Amino acid sequence: MKQQDDNMQGGAIFPRGKKNDAYAQYFTGASYQNVLSTEIAYIRNVTFEPGCRNFWHIHHQCGQILLVTAGRGWCQEWGKPAKELHPGDVVSIPQGTKHWHGAAKDCWFAHLSVIVPAEGAPIEWLEPVSDEEYNRLR
Amino acid sequence: MKQQDDNMQGGAIFPRGKKNDAYAQYFTGASYQNVLSTEIAYIRNVTFEPGCRNFWHIHHQCGQILLVTAGRGWCQEWGKPAKELHPGDVVSIPQGTKHWHGAAKDCWFAHLSVIVPAEGAPIEWLEPVSDEEYNRLR
Repeated sequence: MKQQDDNMQGGAIFPRGKKNDAYAQYFTGASYQNVLSTEIAYIRNVTFEPGCRNFWHIHHQCGQILLVTAGRGWCQEWGKPAKELHPGDVVSIPQGTKHWHGAAKDCWFAHLSVIVPAEGAPIEWLEPVSDEEYNRLR
Repeated sequence: MKQQDDNMQGGAIFPRGKKNDAYAQYFTGASYQNVLSTEIAYIRNVTFEPGCRNFWHIHHQCGQILLVTAGRGWCQEWGKPAKELHPGDVVSIPQGTKHWHGAAKDCWFAHLSVIVPAEGAPIEWLEPVSDEEYNRLR
């Protein structure tokens, strides 16, 4: 785990930014957020500590693309198996889809999030990913 | 140079994809392109060999964001000084702006390109960046 954390520090390309206090209420564990673009598209670098994941949520009126840049993590759409994610992976989340994403238990994780349109489309935040569900993942 | 090329190979996160033959007529030197997303936003990983750059061009009806992931390169808007780019840098190019981007003389370069909307907005390709202009850059 130590080595993976070190790799993550060395491997992270975009600055990690500040602790994501504004959205902490919708996350299990600590995450960091760095807003890279607010025009054309809304692009953020999101970093999750090991074990951190966001609650189930739905993007309304917009789609989201995740571009994985470092670490190891997961993304799951409601009713489908979780998909393991590694650097270079790309995930497209259609609008209106209930889903969550976050780090693996033992590894930091970072992805770019691209949301279109840039102007704040609403997110509906739902229940946490339960420890029971999450702990079934490797 | 050799070491930087090796770093680039190790540092590249997104697969380099195929030689960009379709647009070779608008590039000085060899580039590679890997399309990562065609829905929500049009996202490509673009890789330039040392010395490679695209011609001056204009995106009509869309904006473009460059997210630099590896190497060293340049982006220049018409009438402004060229801006040196490194991993983690983000460039926003407003629609209708004449510009070029590409690698440094002695280093590979890779960026993600995010274009919104995803559906093919036209690019107006203009003249090459002259060797005289380019060779003034370090």
